[in-house]
Amino acid sequence: MSGPSDTGLLSPVRAGTPVEAAVSDEAWLQAMVDAEAALARAQARLGSVPERAAAVITEAAADHGLDPRALALASREHANPVVSVVAAFTRAVTERSPEAAEYVHRGSTSQDVFDTAAMLVCRRALAAVRDDLAAAADALEPQVRRHRDTPMAGRTLALQAVPTTFGLKAAGWRRLFLDAARRIDRLLDGGLPVSLGGAAGTLGGYLEYAAPPAGGDAPEDPGRSADRLVEAFAAETGLAPQALPWHALRSPVADLASVLAFTAGALGKAAVDVLTLSRTEVGEVAEPGAPGRGASSAMPHKRNPVLATMVRSAALQVPALASVLHQCLAAEDERSAGGWHAEWQPLRECLRLTGGAAHTMVELARGLEPRPERMERNLRLTASALTSERVAAALAPALGRVRARELVSDGAAESVRTGRPLAEAVADRLAREAGGGGPTGAPSAAELAALCDPADYTGAAAALADRSLADRSLDGRGR
Amino acid sequence: MSGPSDTGLLSPVRAGTPVEAAVSDEAWLQAMVDAEAALARAQARLGSVPERAAAVITEAAADHGLDPRALALASREHANPVVSVVAAFTRAVTERSPEAAEYVHRGSTSQDVFDTAAMLVCRRALAAVRDDLAAAADALEPQVRRHRDTPMAGRTLALQAVPTTFGLKAAGWRRLFLDAARRIDRLLDGGLPVSLGGAAGTLGGYLEYAAPPAGGDAPEDPGRSADRLVEAFAAETGLAPQALPWHALRSPVADLASVLAFTAGALGKAAVDVLTLSRTEVGEVAEPGAPGRGASSAMPHKRNPVLATMVRSAALQVPALASVLHQCLAAEDERSAGGWHAEWQPLRECLRLTGGAAHTMVELARGLEPRPERMERNLRLTASALTSERVAAALAPALGRVRARELVSDGAAESVRTGRPLAEAVADRLAREAGGGGPTGAPSAAELAALCDPADYTGAAAALADRSLADRSLDGRGR
Amino acid sequence: MSGPSDTGLLSPVRAGTPVEAAVSDEAWLQAMVDAEAALARAQARLGSVPERAAAVITEAAADHGLDPRALALASREHANPVVSVVAAFTRAVTERSPEAAEYVHRGSTSQDVFDTAAMLVCRRALAAVRDDLAAAADALEPQVRRHRDTPMAGRTLALQAVPTTFGLKAAGWRRLFLDAARRIDRLLDGGLPVSLGGAAGTLGGYLEYAAPPAGGDAPEDPGRSADRLVEAFAAETGLAPQALPWHALRSPVADLASVLAFTAGALGKAAVDVLTLSRTEVGEVAEPGAPGRGASSAMPHKRNPVLATMVRSAALQVPALASVLHQCLAAEDERSAGGWHAEWQPLRECLRLTGGAAHTMVELARGLEPRPERMERNLRLTASALTSERVAAALAPALGRVRARELVSDGAAESVRTGRPLAEAVADRLAREAGGGGPTGAPSAAELAALCDPADYTGAAAALADRSLADRSLDGRGR
Amino acid sequence: MSGPSDTGLLSPVRAGTPVEAAVSDEAWLQAMVDAEAALARAQARLGSVPERAAAVITEAAADHGLDPRALALASREHANPVVSVVAAFTRAVTERSPEAAEYVHRGSTSQDVFDTAAMLVCRRALAAVRDDLAAAADALEPQVRRHRDTPMAGRTLALQAVPTTFGLKAAGWRRLFLDAARRIDRLLDGGLPVSLGGAAGTLGGYLEYAAPPAGGDAPEDPGRSADRLVEAFAAETGLAPQALPWHALRSPVADLASVLAFTAGALGKAAVDVLTLSRTEVGEVAEPGAPGRGASSAMPHKRNPVLATMVRSAALQVPALASVLHQCLAAEDERSAGGWHAEWQPLRECLRLTGGAAHTMVELARGLEPRPERMERNLRLTASALTSERVAAALAPALGRVRARELVSDGAAESVRTGRPLAEAVADRLAREAGGGGPTGAPSAAELAALCDPADYTGAAAALADRSLADRSLDGRGR
Repeated sequence: MSGPSDTGLLSPVRAGTPVEAAVSDEAWLQAMVDAEAALARAQARLGSVPERAAAVITEAAADHGLDPRALALASREHANPVVSVVAAFTRAVTERSPEAAEYVHRGSTSQDVFDTAAMLVCRRALAAVRDDLAAAADALEPQVRRHRDTPMAGRTLALQAVPTTFGLKAAGWRRLFLDAARRIDRLLDGGLPVSLGGAAGTLGGYLEYAAPPAGGDAPEDPGRSADRLVEAFAAETGLAPQALPWHALRSPVADLASVLAFTAGALGKAAVDVLTLSRTEVGEVAEPGAPGRGASSAMPHKRNPVLATMVRSAALQVPALASVLHQCLAAEDERSAGGWHAEWQPLRECLRLTGGAAHTMVELARGLEPRPERMERNLRLTASALTSERVAAALAPALGRVRARELVSDGAAESVRTGRPLAEAVADRLAREAGGGGPTGAPSAAELAALCDPADYTGAAAALADRSLADRSLDGRGR
Repeated sequence: MSGPSDTGLLSPVRAGTPVEAAVSDEAWLQAMVDAEAALARAQARLGSVPERAAAVITEAAADHGLDPRALALASREHANPVVSVVAAFTRAVTERSPEAAEYVHRGSTSQDVFDTAAMLVCRRALAAVRDDLAAAADALEPQVRRHRDTPMAGRTLALQAVPTTFGLKAAGWRRLFLDAARRIDRLLDGGLPVSLGGAAGTLGGYLEYAAPPAGGDAPEDPGRSADRLVEAFAAETGLAPQALPWHALRSPVADLASVLAFTAGALGKAAVDVLTLSRTEVGEVAEPGAPGRGASSAMPHKRNPVLATMVRSAALQVPALASVLHQCLAAEDERSAGGWHAEWQPLRECLRLTGGAAHTMVELARGLEPRPERMERNLRLTASALTSERVAAALAPALGRVRARELVSDGAAESVRTGRPLAEAVADRLAREAGGGGPTGAPSAAELAALCDPADYTGAAAALADRSLADRSLDGRGR
Repeated sequence: MSGPSDTGLLSPVRAGTPVEAAVSDEAWLQAMVDAEAALARAQARLGSVPERAAAVITEAAADHGLDPRALALASREHANPVVSVVAAFTRAVTERSPEAAEYVHRGSTSQDVFDTAAMLVCRRALAAVRDDLAAAADALEPQVRRHRDTPMAGRTLALQAVPTTFGLKAAGWRRLFLDAARRIDRLLDGGLPVSLGGAAGTLGGYLEYAAPPAGGDAPEDPGRSADRLVEAFAAETGLAPQALPWHALRSPVADLASVLAFTAGALGKAAVDVLTLSRTEVGEVAEPGAPGRGASSAMPHKRNPVLATMVRSAALQVPALASVLHQCLAAEDERSAGGWHAEWQPLRECLRLTGGAAHTMVELARGLEPRPERMERNLRLTASALTSERVAAALAPALGRVRARELVSDGAAESVRTGRPLAEAVADRLAREAGGGGPTGAPSAAELAALCDPADYTGAAAALADRSLADRSLDGRGR
Repeated sequence: MSGPSDTGLLSPVRAGTPVEAAVSDEAWLQAMVDAEAALARAQARLGSVPERAAAVITEAAADHGLDPRALALASREHANPVVSVVAAFTRAVTERSPEAAEYVHRGSTSQDVFDTAAMLVCRRALAAVRDDLAAAADALEPQVRRHRDTPMAGRTLALQAVPTTFGLKAAGWRRLFLDAARRIDRLLDGGLPVSLGGAAGTLGGYLEYAAPPAGGDAPEDPGRSADRLVEAFAAETGLAPQALPWHALRSPVADLASVLAFTAGALGKAAVDVLTLSRTEVGEVAEPGAPGRGASSAMPHKRNPVLATMVRSAALQVPALASVLHQCLAAEDERSAGGWHAEWQPLRECLRLTGGAAHTMVELARGLEPRPERMERNLRLTASALTSERVAAALAPALGRVRARELVSDGAAESVRTGRPLAEAVADRLAREAGGGGPTGAPSAAELAALCDPADYTGAAAALADRSLADRSLDGRGR
């Protein structure tokens, strides 16, 4: 059965990227039946489900033949898809073995299956996002190295401020990608947890079905029995044990929201910089070209920065979507009526947009073309005004900080107005100081000219770029 | 070609509802080619495209055979789907007539086609939402009428406060649905506009292709030419003329965001009330039953309020999604790099969630079962504490407002603590006033008992319910 | 009593602007006691409060001496400030007349007072925002007129696209300001409503205190009594009558959210354009200069676009704050526990930020300095690439649309790469067409040169600018 | 100078709480001058500022006498307060020593001072939030212990589901508070960083003023010089060194957003549960009483759950405010025009609301009164329907899972409809199975009655509560 589609026509940033498939209905459905199978195997480990039944259930999960659209439609009867998934999956198991079908979803509840499936989906999707972040960071590394000394205008509040280097700029992007990757690693290392609570978080249903411990008649201590089931389920899914049943304690989802909002924003930072530097009047970088890439439907001459545009489109959406997930922390009762349900699509969309953006960024970072000659030309646009801070500092010992600043401001104003070199405008003014003799200890004309060379005023930019490359804390994790 | 699907498995509130199809990739794609065809016909009206070509293009649009998934994948090359849609559609037209293909997308730009298509999609989707709001309001009308006098506890800050009636409660929901429907009507009546700006909002490309006005050689005044094209395009699409090209003046999208956030919230209000009143301990309403509806995967006894749950899930998502659209108003340049692109999916999702919620609410409103006997029983839970406000008012003339309030507070505290009827607790205290003689002009024990009947203290509830039914301002618009 | 202050140190966009005072604690507190006084006068009109008492209460409201900080602290006992305000205000009235004090807050409830006060505050604040929008629109009018024909680069996806005019650009900003002002007018014209519901929306308390209608003993029909009180309260406050008590039907607040998000975004659009055009490398506009304005603490040469920066800072905050208000529509019960309370500060902040931004924009619009010579220079940066669309259109009749586009793309690529004029690059290629003879009907070299003049390719920009000035729909409303 | 105030009248959740003062204008202003003083001392350590000057600057910072309101007003000239703060502070230093004044803000820039100050403010505020979270967790500990076995209805989708215990419920709240506290600890342990970039992130200005290293003439390597300054500044402020200058790499602010959204949501969860359980019809908990606390302005009998209401009001606001901070990650250039400025007030508001909510929660947690008798009574409301899951499990071996579920569903329906004990309804049906003889191995009537005792069906609730108390990972950190 197929329904009205939503395959990325309105979301190019994710269309066809790996994360799109990883969070699709198909992936989510597979994860749900995988969770059911893992549960049966876990119960088999503890003796409450026959090994044979668990094996049949596992086989059925690997080849379930369920139809996402039919189940989506059926999900309206229960406000969640699991009830129908269980029914359909039980039928699939029954076809293989009616006996085994008795053991599907034993003692379980919709939310255990859904949330465990969600964690399986998220783990896979997050790992992909993280690898793309690492790949984008790697791709920037040679740019940082190559351009550690390439001067360009640093810009603040939209205006040229003082010089920096392109290497430091790229180092900043790389740093954010690593920051994001580390936050993902921390989440994955901590372990996304299984969800196992039963109907209302007491595991009551599971315990009803629990087998007595081997060699004993007495019913097992419920706490021990719960622990063993959680551990077995974690082992079978590869997820972490939960601290407490978390149907209404949504820390795992809130943490995902935080890390995805962070990641989308980190990618967005690089994207808005690329857009700014790509502007026709700036022209300091160009996106990687590909035949037909970035063509406009109207204007033959354009090569639009489409990769950065797509990444930015994701960065504009994710924070709001993440806020829905943070909002859903305040879930009433043992399972919220609506709060839980409001998480699903935003969580998928956060993963999909962020993952699509990360994947897009890899291509952008790998092919980005800096234009040092344009950087240099732009640095010269303002007759050295970008060095005014430095000149003022150099004059401070002779004039005092306040007077030095005034004098340079005045000189810079002339310079900006007329294009006259800043060094000359300042030299004139200096000569008129101190009753016309000029202050003692002020720089000479030649020294002033040197101070006013923007390409020479990049501070610690190169050193900072170097240091940033020493941050290799993702090394050895399979980037 | 089919890709990873997103057909509502994680969004039951919209799965299978009419709005889902109305905003699908298929619908959006159809609207794009419809916009192209309307443009060709509009240009034909003005003589710059041959009638025959426009006819062929229109035929091709009606039977285009384009594949949404393939176009979604191709959209990554341009950060928007239109370039690829135009290419594929031009091929489709070429198969019918190479001559006609010359006239596809003449003078146009991606954003004109996309935004016009978006307005076509929104108009249809909004009309459906509006009709569902009207239907839900209609469904509540008999409840308002029937229960104008049915007393129930009014609740504030989670506690029973004073009595109200179920009729007034339902009247409030109906009022919100009508408020939302009116806001949609106002938007539709004002007219969603065509988008016609050409590459950067000057209509330059269109004018290059414009034919000289009939009977003259002189090129037409550009303003007049632009006006005629806008009018013709509006006529052909059924949309409204635009005030100015709006590639970067996003009032239409911001207005949609506002009205959809409003509508989702209005529906959400009714949903949270239904959830509260459905609580096992309250039990004053039940959702419409249907076989299997609301069944739990774990608990045989439950009939979950799934309709209200789904509506609430939408209400929790839409405001954040709408905020993305409001954020995108601040679009730089003549077309934003990313700001425009960030609108598409949230706009669709707002429509889909709100439309799904409205559709769900119709079913809920039609089948909602109030339980007057539980309302009555709950009203009696607190030994008449809900009338304490009234009793204090009745004692005020005799005791002064402040003292009356104190005395009643004290009596209500005993009443709540012990279950003793409020009238008795107050009578005792009254008797001890004024040196033991009781104040002059205080109500008698019988009067007190009458004052303490919660079912009798519903103020203007019934009258307000009546008046609200007189609000029929959607009448005559095809509800 | 004074407490830790929040006087705008972290929010320069609003510090010292009129709206800041209009929404201050002092203003809100005044509005609360004004609402109490208006209620007493309304009840006096209907005979249930002595005229004399209403007069004393009104006098006390005009000179209340209440301390916002003390009341803020006390508000924690009730989760809202009204209970303490009423207590303190009653004491103030008691000092004037113990008899009159009996009639303060008669039959009323916190939310009636608070929400009515909020509407009084909002009306005043909104009117100020609206007037600033109108003033900013007025200030842009001469710019639109003067620069209707001033060519500049239109930019899309960060790149120069085709030419436009600065007049049309300014016309777009003006249009958005008028759109926002009209949405505010519509809200104000519809009338912000009084809030009158009593404890749980039935007006029960008010009716207890209501006097029998003149000349009759029989208690008045509750509906009629409620209507009369609402009308009298509306008359005394100058607000509109309510449709239904709206303690939990939050349409008025949601509408405010919508219009404020719209307005902030409209202002934000102009701000991001000013920021982009102010960039050192673009330099097409400058913010109004004032001594010391925009100075950097580090860089003597800078004159930062601080007005646009402040406006943008507001535009980045308001949509999220407005989403809180939209979220609060889904309020449970007759008064939400928390949902109502979550509205107050975001509503104030939306007003304050949007009002501050509008006020800032007036100054920006009045003093904005366009730089036509830089616009012209920038237009020439790309050797006429901005006219490629037009050249392709001109060649289409001779070459077919597709081939024309290819040829021009190729020529534009050479032109961008080498700086060779587009006309020449295209002429060469044309000459090689059609077996080397050039196609029939193609433009001559001179015609090509004319086609490639960007200053001549502004389409309908001037005419659109003219038309936009004809939109004077705010006229006659005291702009 | 004092201006329009905002002292919490509209935000009771924070009025008068410690965090309010910790994030006030006064606190922020103090932190700015503290940052200036720390910078001077750091530069003195490295020899570029005389020790004496640093000492005078430090004295001036401790007793600065600056006026927040005057500086707020002045901040409009620069879109940030620092320029005016530096000017005023320099005057204050000049009064003590004109020589020392030369050394104020040496080589620095507004954002270094502001961001460092912000981190100082956040550190103090976060520590307070964290301590309140720990205190609230501590306060819940005895409740968890005391009520580990106290049965109550577990509720899902608004309905009673299966039994749980109040101890497990409280354990869940405690767990969330600890989760939040741990996330804050991690942030504080990682160290909020100083900000030191100079005009555009290269530390250029600082290096101009840097002294040559002791014993040498040659200018120091810029990287080493930068490192030493960062380390000295970190030592003087007590903050952590930065990884890279972060004017436009906003990881620290994004992390704050994440942790504050998490914390507000964690508190919100407990609040919505308390509100639900406080409902008149549920009555399973009551907020701590205090004279006058929770009084209604209209209704003498009410004791509103005002603490939970205030906490919820914060939880409804913070996620959206945090989304602004996440959005601001995508900051263009070396310092964003507007993006940086949009962070300040939302960051303060997130701290203030979350801190106010945490402080409120301590009081709520300490005084919360559970009502086991109401829990018990509510458990009995549905004639044991909450045990239906268990009964079905018990019948599964004899009937098969599907048939068992059907039979129990049917029985539960009768039970809910008529009030007949579930055990009887099921026994009847069981007797009719298997051709009227009843199935082999089915439970006896007595066994059925035992199975249907809800108080006995709490699964692993008590054990989970016990285990959760073993989570003491905040121990030893001064809770």
